[in-house]
Amino acid sequence: MSEEHTNGLTHVRDGKPMMVDVSGKAAGRRVALARVKVELGSEVMAKFSGGDLVGPKGSVVQTAIIAGTMAVKRTWELIPFCHPLPVEHCHFDVREDGDGLLVDCEVATTGKTGVEMEAMTGVMVAALTIYDMCKALNKGIRIEGARLVSKTGGKSGDYFSE
Amino acid sequence: MSEEHTNGLTHVRDGKPMMVDVSGKAAGRRVALARVKVELGSEVMAKFSGGDLVGPKGSVVQTAIIAGTMAVKRTWELIPFCHPLPVEHCHFDVREDGDGLLVDCEVATTGKTGVEMEAMTGVMVAALTIYDMCKALNKGIRIEGARLVSKTGGKSGDYFSE
Amino acid sequence: MSEEHTNGLTHVRDGKPMMVDVSGKAAGRRVALARVKVELGSEVMAKFSGGDLVGPKGSVVQTAIIAGTMAVKRTWELIPFCHPLPVEHCHFDVREDGDGLLVDCEVATTGKTGVEMEAMTGVMVAALTIYDMCKALNKGIRIEGARLVSKTGGKSGDYFSE
Amino acid sequence: MSEEHTNGLTHVRDGKPMMVDVSGKAAGRRVALARVKVELGSEVMAKFSGGDLVGPKGSVVQTAIIAGTMAVKRTWELIPFCHPLPVEHCHFDVREDGDGLLVDCEVATTGKTGVEMEAMTGVMVAALTIYDMCKALNKGIRIEGARLVSKTGGKSGDYFSE
Amino acid sequence: MSEEHTNGLTHVRDGKPMMVDVSGKAAGRRVALARVKVELGSEVMAKFSGGDLVGPKGSVVQTAIIAGTMAVKRTWELIPFCHPLPVEHCHFDVREDGDGLLVDCEVATTGKTGVEMEAMTGVMVAALTIYDMCKALNKGIRIEGARLVSKTGGKSGDYFSE
Amino acid sequence: MSEEHTNGLTHVRDGKPMMVDVSGKAAGRRVALARVKVELGSEVMAKFSGGDLVGPKGSVVQTAIIAGTMAVKRTWELIPFCHPLPVEHCHFDVREDGDGLLVDCEVATTGKTGVEMEAMTGVMVAALTIYDMCKALNKGIRIEGARLVSKTGGKSGDYFSE
Repeated sequence: MSEEHTNGLTHVRDGKPMMVDVSGKAAGRRVALARVKVELGSEVMAKFSGGDLVGPKGSVVQTAIIAGTMAVKRTWELIPFCHPLPVEHCHFDVREDGDGLLVDCEVATTGKTGVEMEAMTGVMVAALTIYDMCKALNKGIRIEGARLVSKTGGKSGDYFSE
Repeated sequence: MSEEHTNGLTHVRDGKPMMVDVSGKAAGRRVALARVKVELGSEVMAKFSGGDLVGPKGSVVQTAIIAGTMAVKRTWELIPFCHPLPVEHCHFDVREDGDGLLVDCEVATTGKTGVEMEAMTGVMVAALTIYDMCKALNKGIRIEGARLVSKTGGKSGDYFSE
Repeated sequence: MSEEHTNGLTHVRDGKPMMVDVSGKAAGRRVALARVKVELGSEVMAKFSGGDLVGPKGSVVQTAIIAGTMAVKRTWELIPFCHPLPVEHCHFDVREDGDGLLVDCEVATTGKTGVEMEAMTGVMVAALTIYDMCKALNKGIRIEGARLVSKTGGKSGDYFSE
Repeated sequence: MSEEHTNGLTHVRDGKPMMVDVSGKAAGRRVALARVKVELGSEVMAKFSGGDLVGPKGSVVQTAIIAGTMAVKRTWELIPFCHPLPVEHCHFDVREDGDGLLVDCEVATTGKTGVEMEAMTGVMVAALTIYDMCKALNKGIRIEGARLVSKTGGKSGDYFSE
Repeated sequence: MSEEHTNGLTHVRDGKPMMVDVSGKAAGRRVALARVKVELGSEVMAKFSGGDLVGPKGSVVQTAIIAGTMAVKRTWELIPFCHPLPVEHCHFDVREDGDGLLVDCEVATTGKTGVEMEAMTGVMVAALTIYDMCKALNKGIRIEGARLVSKTGGKSGDYFSE
Repeated sequence: MSEEHTNGLTHVRDGKPMMVDVSGKAAGRRVALARVKVELGSEVMAKFSGGDLVGPKGSVVQTAIIAGTMAVKRTWELIPFCHPLPVEHCHFDVREDGDGLLVDCEVATTGKTGVEMEAMTGVMVAALTIYDMCKALNKGIRIEGARLVSKTGGKSGDYFSE
């Protein structure tokens, strides 16, 4: 796949989109951590303060974790050129941060491709679920700063955002 | 559903999560528009410059639109307490904005509930698809500012973000 | 569809399985309530006693409710001849009963077919989720007595189990 | 949507693919019938001869009908710009024809769009299922002549292939 | 994961639900057998008497087997914290037992986690399918005694219900 | 599984359909190539001539490739007795051929079963997508000659259609 054909895009060749061939890659342990911020606003956060709705047992948080976990497993159904892979581990962390909730999702597999998209999809669906359950309180909720925090394993090397 | 039971959260009663009962609502035309920004960075955008929507960037945009459209229709499978509803219209707009791409998704239905979550899910999955197809060029891509731009129809009134 | 062709089975004609044609039916409000018992055993139940794991906020119960709700919406994907229909309401109740948990699921729609299968699928997947989360404590968990408690709406008349 | 923008293609505007907006259409009864031929070859058919629809061949036919029915309901998940719609009726007919099996699928709904794609998807997945169950006997099986036989309902008028 | 954090529940830590990390487990052959009874009642069973498994009742059984098999493969989509795994074998047995049908489902894989949930989900969806196809004859059908009969493979040891 | 029980059909035993047990097979590289022709007719093809709608960058072709790729990954959800397997490579080629488009799909995996069904399902869903996007121009479009072109890997030997 020469550079002039792809313009550096791994999923496009000769102007057509395509799945990357991972047949020849070695299977190995791969881990990725993604993060997103749900800006709920001070009024929504005040509803939670003193309560346990944003504590570990809160319904909003638990629903977000469950929805996120289920989406992690179905990432390859949603993103056209993602390879199906056996998710072996998926852990969410949700915590207060200013006027919102910070959502982390760590995913691990033993496979031929990385799990960045699984972790990114996980935080996104968790964030959408929080949005859905709080949108009656604030129509201006924003989901911000979705990004990869780190990835390890794979030929392209480890990555840690600064 | 009294205030003390729900703390204002429509999807939680007595500490348990639940679907909102929409049986008694009137069906009507409902439209929602959501937006997100994919911060690809100047190097990725430079790869695209001078190209057009049907060049390599074309494939990225088209794949994002298709993935987003398919996700809009499956929103209720991803978000635990979303109601299934018949999507009648779904339109994506993707355009350059600084060092990234701005993605809009407008969804319409004739139903008993709004389509905010469908539009939000649409822009998120489109953004994730763009991220996936460009991540080999930049591991620091960020997805920012996902939000509802407007909604019309429904008892709670129209909404336009300022 | 004469009796000799079907032997009374609505989904079989001339020895072949088939979907029932509901085109000619009137749409109306339909509600169904199903129930199942998860026999967890005294040792598992003792782990819960005094704690809040089986209270409204317990993770096991909340996960079961969410999984059950999501399954209710996908019933037509699982049961070959079920018609897709717009679930408008879905409510779960989970409570202690002897050495186990009793799970109720009520579903409502405005449609041409009943929602018995949705309610039954809901309690089953909720029960399986409870089983999954407790099976490390007791491999002998049993799921018992899954049945329709009541249904209203539709031409065949209301039904209330005695 | 002017002709120069679309070149007559309803799903493409300005070079980008999109869902057709059906919001303004009237809901009505729509029926479509599609057909396909699975060319199994004389050796496979001879295995079936003298048998009946409930012998080993019966299993093949029944499995095809069930897989086809389930696919009809999920057409909108597979075909990017198909609208989700409530399938109200779906009937398969499978019969011997020369050295193969002829598969018919009739689908009906009350909705704003036609069910041609549902009927076409139904015969295709039924045919693929027959192929799968017989491929150990003949790797040269071909699926031929998939087409719309008729459609009724909708603004564009009824259609009957000659 | 200390006992005080989990109360013995493998899927709950610090009050939050989560997937178990199986990254470090060894892959091996794992088999599970589950069973359920569908209490159809004497009137429904009489309809079947004198018939055989490939008569009208045959369609019910075949549809149940197909629906069950398809559900086995999608267990991880239904049960929030189940790991996706490659089902290598799935066999159903359905036989008369008193006034009902006894359904067995055996599942095997080569993987890092057991297939108990796959076998349990298989019998449940098969049972629900039988229920669906017979419910017009008897609204009082019950699904009873769903349980694990045996499991082999994996670190926690083999299990055979007495 | 003796011949008299199965009549040579690998998915039927004693008149009941079933999944083939692949537990004992060796995992290896397996590749399959399938092909189908979409007979669009001269009028539809004329719309495309001189344009790039059927070129590599055309929306119709790109949408078909994306839909086909996503269907390849979900083959086991559609075909009842297909085993789930990790698709490692999937490549589509779409080119003009007379009055239609010829669609090729090549799929590869490292697994215990072949990928013929994945390749066949890929060309079928790609063809259905082309059909969907062009059906407003010609209701008489036909999908013809779907077949396996070649397969390599696996115990039953390589296959190349003449």
